[in-house]
Amino acid sequence: MLASIINGKIGTKISINDRSFLYGDGLFETILLKNNQPIFFQEHLDRLEKGMNILNINMLDNFIHNLKLEVYEFIDGFVDAVLKIIVTRGESQRGYGFDENIQPNVILQLFNLPTIKKNSLHVTICHNKLPTEPFYNGIKHNNRLPQIIARLQAQKLNMDEGIMLDEDDNIICATSANLFVIKDQITLTPKLNKCGIHGITSAKILDILSVKGYNISICNIKIGDILKSNGCFATNSIMGIRQISHIDGFEIPTNNNIFLEINQQYENLF
Amino acid sequence: MLASIINGKIGTKISINDRSFLYGDGLFETILLKNNQPIFFQEHLDRLEKGMNILNINMLDNFIHNLKLEVYEFIDGFVDAVLKIIVTRGESQRGYGFDENIQPNVILQLFNLPTIKKNSLHVTICHNKLPTEPFYNGIKHNNRLPQIIARLQAQKLNMDEGIMLDEDDNIICATSANLFVIKDQITLTPKLNKCGIHGITSAKILDILSVKGYNISICNIKIGDILKSNGCFATNSIMGIRQISHIDGFEIPTNNNIFLEINQQYENLF
Repeated sequence: MLASIINGKIGTKISINDRSFLYGDGLFETILLKNNQPIFFQEHLDRLEKGMNILNINMLDNFIHNLKLEVYEFIDGFVDAVLKIIVTRGESQRGYGFDENIQPNVILQLFNLPTIKKNSLHVTICHNKLPTEPFYNGIKHNNRLPQIIARLQAQKLNMDEGIMLDEDDNIICATSANLFVIKDQITLTPKLNKCGIHGITSAKILDILSVKGYNISICNIKIGDILKSNGCFATNSIMGIRQISHIDGFEIPTNNNIFLEINQQYENLF
Repeated sequence: MLASIINGKIGTKISINDRSFLYGDGLFETILLKNNQPIFFQEHLDRLEKGMNILNINMLDNFIHNLKLEVYEFIDGFVDAVLKIIVTRGESQRGYGFDENIQPNVILQLFNLPTIKKNSLHVTICHNKLPTEPFYNGIKHNNRLPQIIARLQAQKLNMDEGIMLDEDDNIICATSANLFVIKDQITLTPKLNKCGIHGITSAKILDILSVKGYNISICNIKIGDILKSNGCFATNSIMGIRQISHIDGFEIPTNNNIFLEINQQYENLF
């Protein structure tokens, strides 16, 4: 970690009464910092604000505006890095309940930018399924045990990533990425109405595809659809877009024309 | 909070790199301390150990034995209180993955014992359902957003507790208690094979019922079963056993003979 602040003050420690420590009762955003600019910053802030509303986390007046200013001050002098924003519900005593005046804790962290690799990914299908989350679907909350169990499986198998299914065996996402599948001339991406995170990068990809006039289908996708596809790729804010070349050893075509064009267009966005 | 130690040292702050803070990647136990004795201590330690195994949290040699000694030293001088044990996977950098040598953080907290009330509970049926957790079902992990959302609903309605259903509308538990329903002469308690926590107190109740020769059914229970029941009660380690008298205003019989006998027997256990 390069730097961190907690509620505006330099620090690396949080109270053991913080509800994210106790129950994962918080939210996060991971943002690419390029040339000292947080990429798609407003979109990340919008998702964070949406998550706070859904989880009923208290927001002081001008919370997002003030957070924005704080971030710009915090990242001053850093060129390329990873910025992480964590907002927790705040601190409380034992028990799931909390005082209605509880105030959120805001943590900013900066990390070295990992080497952005371009090689294609070898992935595995994860055994543990994503639970349905009707009440807080799509937001980037801090209850991440399903992804952790899945990532552990991928790590043990020396895979780059793991693909996660829902309880009906629909493909939803990778442990930390959204997924796209190119089948004939249609780009498919999973419906995320029951689980999964609404990705900032994946929304940009949909924009690009739409503007370019490509056929898009947001639908239920099964493993068989990927295995018979013309290409498959994973997206997140830090790695951007990465092709998947192997699923449990089964080869998927790479260098599909649609992928190449999307990749080019995406890199032009910032 | 009366006192707290972190990895054996007095303290109230934890690293923002702790994975329970980041992802709820940890476990907890809440234990009644009576006359300086942790009640059903071994059972709580067994559940904690089971949870650590399921989540693949590293355990040094003699981890549970050493934890036991640490707890006895920590609670020395405290008579009646609530002891909370938190074990997290440990600290890591950004990302769901972790180093295989990561070492857990162990936090002990003591709280004032709340006034143990005996009056019956008014509860509501919660709208948000418990997700199915096939891979880590039954353990007391720190991913507690479903319970928090549910508890918030109960609090807003001025209810003592909320009853949580699974996705198939089976009754599973209260937000922080297990449930029993007396119907005719049979005591019903929900199947917890898909979600819910395996309660220490509820296991003791099953023991009592079994020894006394009562008919027990561990089965799917619907709201209608409670509404037509002869009594319903909630159990956890701190409050013990509490009758439920009203569900969303609908009255449930109290002072059922089976309940009175179980309650008496339970209090004789410690």
